[in-house]
Amino acid sequence: MYIQILGSAAGGGFPQWNCNCANCHGLRSGTLRALPRTQSSIALSDDGVNWVLCNASPDIRAQLHNFAPMQPGRALRDTGIGAIILLDSQIDHTTGLLSLREGCPHQVWCTEMVHQDLTTGFPLFNMLEHWNGGLAWNRIDLGRSFSAPACPNLRFTPFALRSAAPPYSPHRFDPHPGDNIGLWVEDTATGGKLFYAPGLYEVDAELKAQMAEADCLLVDGTLWSDDEMQRRGVGTRTGREMGHLCQAGPGGMLELLDGFSKPRKVLIHINNTNPILDEDSPERAELARHHVEVAFDGMSLQL
Amino acid sequence: MYIQILGSAAGGGFPQWNCNCANCHGLRSGTLRALPRTQSSIALSDDGVNWVLCNASPDIRAQLHNFAPMQPGRALRDTGIGAIILLDSQIDHTTGLLSLREGCPHQVWCTEMVHQDLTTGFPLFNMLEHWNGGLAWNRIDLGRSFSAPACPNLRFTPFALRSAAPPYSPHRFDPHPGDNIGLWVEDTATGGKLFYAPGLYEVDAELKAQMAEADCLLVDGTLWSDDEMQRRGVGTRTGREMGHLCQAGPGGMLELLDGFSKPRKVLIHINNTNPILDEDSPERAELARHHVEVAFDGMSLQL
Repeated sequence: MYIQILGSAAGGGFPQWNCNCANCHGLRSGTLRALPRTQSSIALSDDGVNWVLCNASPDIRAQLHNFAPMQPGRALRDTGIGAIILLDSQIDHTTGLLSLREGCPHQVWCTEMVHQDLTTGFPLFNMLEHWNGGLAWNRIDLGRSFSAPACPNLRFTPFALRSAAPPYSPHRFDPHPGDNIGLWVEDTATGGKLFYAPGLYEVDAELKAQMAEADCLLVDGTLWSDDEMQRRGVGTRTGREMGHLCQAGPGGMLELLDGFSKPRKVLIHINNTNPILDEDSPERAELARHHVEVAFDGMSLQL
Repeated sequence: MYIQILGSAAGGGFPQWNCNCANCHGLRSGTLRALPRTQSSIALSDDGVNWVLCNASPDIRAQLHNFAPMQPGRALRDTGIGAIILLDSQIDHTTGLLSLREGCPHQVWCTEMVHQDLTTGFPLFNMLEHWNGGLAWNRIDLGRSFSAPACPNLRFTPFALRSAAPPYSPHRFDPHPGDNIGLWVEDTATGGKLFYAPGLYEVDAELKAQMAEADCLLVDGTLWSDDEMQRRGVGTRTGREMGHLCQAGPGGMLELLDGFSKPRKVLIHINNTNPILDEDSPERAELARHHVEVAFDGMSLQL
């Protein structure tokens, strides 16, 4: 299984256009040793030629341009994208579909809840109908595995994650299983196993058992500390309230990851306020001591 | 008046993600002498500090990042964008508003027709209500001048352009004046005059008289020839059908521009199929002979 990190930052990217926190300002002024990052999205493949795009970020045009295999050049109009999976209906995970309209129709996998959001509050499915067949919906049912014809060896098993629907959603205050999912991905040819959950807060025993079996955990790296947004003065909500398990402290992500010995451990969906973005920070050094990596745009993994 | 070209390409940008026409393939493979370009958007200012953004392209995050004055850094959260004007409701001119949600509320100027599209087919105004006040609508009336408090010396006068509403619009097949506008912009302090029409097809006597008075014409550079999309094998519609006056031939843009001696002449909104993108092409040389420039991302003009 080929895993390509197209974007590794949380919503807004790094730096965020309107932010002057220590990280964003430091990156812009060149005083911080850190890599700029676009908004979270990955591509998976079983052959390195045909890809399943997981989430379509607003930065998708730049992301595709920076990853040459996405333009195999076999025909006058062509793409390496064979299918698209949406893990939720957040703006930073779905807006990129608008930038893919010249390549419609696309095969899009998402849950009933995500499809509801994208046919009401943010009607992407309706809008894109007007472009050569638009988006063909393939329904994801929780707990039921599926494959996309583009990558027949990849078997995807979705699992529900606790998180609210987006602010624009008609069911913002009425959470349902399927508002937000993670993916267990297995390559049936190589046996490689990926656990992918860019938004992760609660981990029950079943999920924990699955994580222990993975070859790679690609998981929520949004915040270092639960009150980070407040500390940096750029927000009022805690990680817990946003459905993100922070890395530090008792019950945090590092403690959780310490419990697994088999998998490679990679954080993704890093918020611009997170001190781990600074490669010289003590927090980054602590990650290294725990053998936890930080995803970056252009990172390639193979399982 | 400061004019900053944030993006100079038509919808899809250059190269377009799924296109392998001679231009897109040539740029990607490094065999063509040409600059990559993001999707059409400009920023105007009367002081070089506070800016009026004209159109919000899907590439806005990269565009703002590449133009340092857009992040003056006066506060923890800050931006140089003081107002936003939308010339139409096309996806490639409005999607960027979603990427500006962290900085809401924004003052947005657009016509009644554009506001209708953006509260129905593509409900950006409704979606962004959930982010700190969202988008405050300032109505543009055809023929009536207006100013934005952010740049009090800039006086904008809108004029109607012939073009259809976007495919997703409820009035796609029922065109109205105001679906698409151009802007006459005057700096009342310096006297500088800009004529801005990234989509332009019909030019009547009144418009022609105005163009003759401008210091700079920043106009539709979409296509070199009317049947270019067909010739390149990537589409079936003519420039005329899309509301774009091509550059070449009798009655074309070059002939029109030849009629004006005062203004600087700059083409913007260049489609990826246009041979003028190739700096070594005979078409580019012909532009030079006519003293017509091609806008590029990062180009700065001052009037």
